Amino acid sequence: MTAANTTVDIPALVARIHAFLEVEVMPLERDPRATHGGHGPSDELVRELRDRARAAGLIAPHLGLSHRQTADVLRAAGRSPLGATALNCMAPDEGNMHLLEKVASPEQRERFLKPLAAGEVRSAFLMTEPDGGAGSDPGMLATTARADGNHWVINGKKAFITGAQGAAFGIIMAKTEHGATMFLADMDAPGIKIAYVYDTIDSSMPGGHAIIELNDVRVDAGAILGEVDQGFKYAQVRLAPARLTHCMRWWGLAERAHEIAADYACRRLAFGKLLVDHEGVGFMLADNLIDLKQAELMIDWCAEVLDSGARGTAESSMAKVAVSEALFRITDRCVQVLGGLGVTHETIVEQAFREIRAFRIYDGPSEVHRWSLAKGIKRERVPK
Amino acid sequence: MTAANTTVDIPALVARIHAFLEVEVMPLERDPRATHGGHGPSDELVRELRDRARAAGLIAPHLGLSHRQTADVLRAAGRSPLGATALNCMAPDEGNMHLLEKVASPEQRERFLKPLAAGEVRSAFLMTEPDGGAGSDPGMLATTARADGNHWVINGKKAFITGAQGAAFGIIMAKTEHGATMFLADMDAPGIKIAYVYDTIDSSMPGGHAIIELNDVRVDAGAILGEVDQGFKYAQVRLAPARLTHCMRWWGLAERAHEIAADYACRRLAFGKLLVDHEGVGFMLADNLIDLKQAELMIDWCAEVLDSGARGTAESSMAKVAVSEALFRITDRCVQVLGGLGVTHETIVEQAFREIRAFRIYDGPSEVHRWSLAKGIKRERVPK
Amino acid sequence: MTAANTTVDIPALVARIHAFLEVEVMPLERDPRATHGGHGPSDELVRELRDRARAAGLIAPHLGLSHRQTADVLRAAGRSPLGATALNCMAPDEGNMHLLEKVASPEQRERFLKPLAAGEVRSAFLMTEPDGGAGSDPGMLATTARADGNHWVINGKKAFITGAQGAAFGIIMAKTEHGATMFLADMDAPGIKIAYVYDTIDSSMPGGHAIIELNDVRVDAGAILGEVDQGFKYAQVRLAPARLTHCMRWWGLAERAHEIAADYACRRLAFGKLLVDHEGVGFMLADNLIDLKQAELMIDWCAEVLDSGARGTAESSMAKVAVSEALFRITDRCVQVLGGLGVTHETIVEQAFREIRAFRIYDGPSEVHRWSLAKGIKRERVPK
Amino acid sequence: MTAANTTVDIPALVARIHAFLEVEVMPLERDPRATHGGHGPSDELVRELRDRARAAGLIAPHLGLSHRQTADVLRAAGRSPLGATALNCMAPDEGNMHLLEKVASPEQRERFLKPLAAGEVRSAFLMTEPDGGAGSDPGMLATTARADGNHWVINGKKAFITGAQGAAFGIIMAKTEHGATMFLADMDAPGIKIAYVYDTIDSSMPGGHAIIELNDVRVDAGAILGEVDQGFKYAQVRLAPARLTHCMRWWGLAERAHEIAADYACRRLAFGKLLVDHEGVGFMLADNLIDLKQAELMIDWCAEVLDSGARGTAESSMAKVAVSEALFRITDRCVQVLGGLGVTHETIVEQAFREIRAFRIYDGPSEVHRWSLAKGIKRERVPK
Repeated sequence: MTAANTTVDIPALVARIHAFLEVEVMPLERDPRATHGGHGPSDELVRELRDRARAAGLIAPHLGLSHRQTADVLRAAGRSPLGATALNCMAPDEGNMHLLEKVASPEQRERFLKPLAAGEVRSAFLMTEPDGGAGSDPGMLATTARADGNHWVINGKKAFITGAQGAAFGIIMAKTEHGATMFLADMDAPGIKIAYVYDTIDSSMPGGHAIIELNDVRVDAGAILGEVDQGFKYAQVRLAPARLTHCMRWWGLAERAHEIAADYACRRLAFGKLLVDHEGVGFMLADNLIDLKQAELMIDWCAEVLDSGARGTAESSMAKVAVSEALFRITDRCVQVLGGLGVTHETIVEQAFREIRAFRIYDGPSEVHRWSLAKGIKRERVPK
Repeated sequence: MTAANTTVDIPALVARIHAFLEVEVMPLERDPRATHGGHGPSDELVRELRDRARAAGLIAPHLGLSHRQTADVLRAAGRSPLGATALNCMAPDEGNMHLLEKVASPEQRERFLKPLAAGEVRSAFLMTEPDGGAGSDPGMLATTARADGNHWVINGKKAFITGAQGAAFGIIMAKTEHGATMFLADMDAPGIKIAYVYDTIDSSMPGGHAIIELNDVRVDAGAILGEVDQGFKYAQVRLAPARLTHCMRWWGLAERAHEIAADYACRRLAFGKLLVDHEGVGFMLADNLIDLKQAELMIDWCAEVLDSGARGTAESSMAKVAVSEALFRITDRCVQVLGGLGVTHETIVEQAFREIRAFRIYDGPSEVHRWSLAKGIKRERVPK
Repeated sequence: MTAANTTVDIPALVARIHAFLEVEVMPLERDPRATHGGHGPSDELVRELRDRARAAGLIAPHLGLSHRQTADVLRAAGRSPLGATALNCMAPDEGNMHLLEKVASPEQRERFLKPLAAGEVRSAFLMTEPDGGAGSDPGMLATTARADGNHWVINGKKAFITGAQGAAFGIIMAKTEHGATMFLADMDAPGIKIAYVYDTIDSSMPGGHAIIELNDVRVDAGAILGEVDQGFKYAQVRLAPARLTHCMRWWGLAERAHEIAADYACRRLAFGKLLVDHEGVGFMLADNLIDLKQAELMIDWCAEVLDSGARGTAESSMAKVAVSEALFRITDRCVQVLGGLGVTHETIVEQAFREIRAFRIYDGPSEVHRWSLAKGIKRERVPK
Repeated sequence: MTAANTTVDIPALVARIHAFLEVEVMPLERDPRATHGGHGPSDELVRELRDRARAAGLIAPHLGLSHRQTADVLRAAGRSPLGATALNCMAPDEGNMHLLEKVASPEQRERFLKPLAAGEVRSAFLMTEPDGGAGSDPGMLATTARADGNHWVINGKKAFITGAQGAAFGIIMAKTEHGATMFLADMDAPGIKIAYVYDTIDSSMPGGHAIIELNDVRVDAGAILGEVDQGFKYAQVRLAPARLTHCMRWWGLAERAHEIAADYACRRLAFGKLLVDHEGVGFMLADNLIDLKQAELMIDWCAEVLDSGARGTAESSMAKVAVSEALFRITDRCVQVLGGLGVTHETIVEQAFREIRAFRIYDGPSEVHRWSLAKGIKRERVPK
């Protein structure tokens, strides 16, 4: 059970975030450092944005809120691709903070969570592996951690590790004797190597997405997050909320794309009338309204499920599929409404479209969630 | 503002409705009188069903509830195509009760609303007109009411009047000098003639859908519902809630169709495994779960808007489009999951598919609602 | 290789069919015998229609044509739900004629094919079985034929047997020692019992769809179609062409539905202009044009593949999915364009919508075809 | 009427193009010069590619072929985003060659067409204008050409001019007294200024897409392409074929994306089996097969219409909508099948997805084509 934090005036906080983004963040969206060769905002820009957020009292504004309250805050933060990064509530840091809050020891909290929550460092979550290892199917985890006296030695390869480049530390998932275990390690520890940073269709995540090689990475027992062999359980703790905060942030970006498209349609003439007066355009905008509302309701519903103390695995799968696909339809329509302008970087719509295309894959493609929901339908009906 | 009725235990009421439908109503679904040549349940069957409902204390269980509470009740009632009729919360009676509650004089309440709410009679709402008159576009209203002393004489033609055949009375919308006026009239009044009853794709509405001729229908001043020339305003009062109760009822039927399909998929083998283990089928059922949840959330959201005292025109348009199209996708998938069985009358799925296809037209096709939402988008942005 | 029949002037034949349907067939579409309680045209009406066709020299006009030529002829015939029945090129007779032409012995041709081709009798194809038997998965064939001296004794149950009621003879598929065998039998043979006729969403197939019980049906060796144990091979011979002629016929009906909707949209006013001038409507009609053209091209392409002598299994699967889903979208849009009128029996559009919904299931639901196409994709790439 | 060129062995030519792309072009796809900061291949790379093509005898292989033959050639060329550029059959040059062949004077052919066809220079087509000028709606043409003695003076602004940067010459569309006129001008002529080059979602067009300012651009009478005031007519000559060659090229790229996805699905394991054995994936690949075939058939059909001598306006609108939307669905599914890999630049699929998203806008968004098709539906039915 997570109760709403009654000491925070959420509408006021949301209003402050809106104003902050408008004044301090959006003007930097076309700064070359904002996408930094497609690998997300540069660390220099991240520092600059966070300094501004800190000055505005808006660093990690979601900490201490219920999931439902977080929804309001992150939807506002997501209106700019730089917003959640500026406010320090971006993936994977935000999910890592959540996990550390739930599982970390006092020492780990002091050493890792504190600077992370303060927005002074970034972090990574090293779970996914290349072909043949753990991706959508965690059962294929191939990275191992072997006990060696009171140390552990980790070997393996991780892929698609968001934010690794430039991160101060990472949470590494590795197979241990009776399950999987999570380890905390500084990213500059001996044996951790960023082998490659992908060029990707999205360009909002600081550090991009990397392949990491783990060669005899040696950590001591203090590096274990929670308990040995409990890694899959902790992954579940992180999973549903992280999936949902993704929905929240991208919702904000899609809402902004819709507003840009609607404004354009109410200004631009074609064939003798405003675009919005062409039903072909007006209907797309109407469908956007409907999709935005439905996505918002799914997010809020799932957040309330999480606040109730439930794990929310099925609910967050439902929300992930529904929201990511709705937001994609929305940004696709926005591109279409803008016409030629829609495929240029002149508005944020083009980036929104690309980011949300990637979102349909990240945190599990829709197909994996449907597969898991179908399993649930069977479980309710077919006795084992 | 409509507050929730705190004297009613909604979950208990819903459970009673579920049980009543299971035991008393569903076994009659394949009775030949249930669709009665495609024109909905026969009046004989309606009486029989209502006697059972009366005995169970379940006549018009929605009266006195908030919109949000009504949602729970009507979703349960809708699980059978006969359910809402049995419980006396079917269109158009349910919408007419709502309108009469809001607008009727004490005398009119006594004479018209009382027997209607008791489930002793049925009623009709005579607004829609044939080609060239008021349909989706109320501005085209061609039926007229002319003052003649302290009487009014109504002339015109109405089309697609649901439930007219067998109805005790009707609410007639007619053009008057400075707008439109609603009149209450017995359906056997001189000059009212049921010219034709359509055969239609749906078959759950008692009395079917008729064309009505109004030839010098003479009513006195007591027949005026509310005030002269205020008809369009009252139509709005009825509109959004009636639209939403349609969503509620059909939601229930779609949920049941989904359960039938899911059960079948967990029982039937094909190519060496259960249907549900074929992703092609399992994914359809997963999408059903998502669509059902989204539709439920849209209904609840819109109901709360209405409970807040707002008119809810845009919100109910959004809900109507989203819900009717989602329910259609759901029942279409259910037919597909059932394969050959799905296109037969052996399960209720086939009827559910047909009913909800019609629902995409009734109370305004999706296109009219999108058009109206697009107008709203423009209104917010373009100064008149 | 099937060469085009150069002795037939196809455009002239098509024009004659168009005229015949317009004058002799369409006026009977609203005759109560045309759908006969939902079980397709009554045998009395079938006889009447065929007498007219015979007089017009239009009985089985497809016989002797190439597949590609047949496409033109059957698309024309399909414009009325009664058309192909009138012209004696309806399923399952048309597919049975094709199979008998390819496989039957001279005696069988004389006794079965001759009266069938002349339109004097109807036939059935008894392959599909109820749950647990052969449906989309022929491997589950449960009906057996056991040799008994120089006779065979057939036992089993068949389901969804189109046209069985009123048919003179049937082709029965049964398991034999080393495969499956097809048998020809009079439908009034001892042991053949029509146990049940389904009520279904479609209503154009004479005799409807039945469940048949086969109890010790005794046939002699002359009843064997082709050779013993070769039944699956013959099923393949029938399969692709029969699937494709379904596409052709329903294409014609969808084209007609589109014309009705387009005409209506060019006549009916809403909100001050013609429906067609509303982009919401005009775009649906434009999409119909595109879908009709694509479906036509898929049919012609697949017909040419069959004419080349190829089996066409994958190609006819592709055509079946693409065409059935396109035609469904088309008729669904036509219903929507017609608004309230679209869900009534006043135009043929409502029936077209229902027929084509069923068509998405008949001859294999889209999912089975996609499954089979995916297998082909794998076969090309993964060595066994 | 354009007859097929019987002196060319098309299958052999296609095979040579396939081999050439495989060996000489595809290895350069990940060369940094290939997308050149998102503005398409650099001119240095273009020269290098064309030298290779020239050596292989594959420069402008489409010249002299019928539209139907061109379809085979350009589909092969399109398999790499660099292919059509290498072979000198890329937009806008290919469309400009076509136009010059039809309309240019002998002098103009010598000076402009000859080096263009030889792949020595690039060209631009200056028709589209910024907001408020000619885009999808040519009637809004705002650029003017004013006669000044035997010269013309052109003023205006053009937007989204593909390939302008680096082009040797351009064809400028400008308003003249009784219509519009096309002018040929060197791009380095005084008064022509490339004001801005957009960053766009696509990255295959050499020179990208630019805004051009035309300030008192002075040309002599020899610069007039065809006749004064006939510009709209010539635009039509270029329009349908150029639209269709776009379809051809992108078809090739989508086919390649599909092959990459299918290969991957037949190699990669998830949840204990090959991806292709998951119906969720296999069905997407099956739908790709169907969409590819339908798109191919639409292209061929429209090409044959053009070869018959018809203008093909409606047909090329139908093809543009159907093909661009089908190819988008295909590449979207390919991204999804590849999962995380699909959103990276590791395969060409990610670029294919982006290119084809832009293609849904270029040469008229789908909405404009549907609008124009709806007008045609009305024209056939409503007397003026």
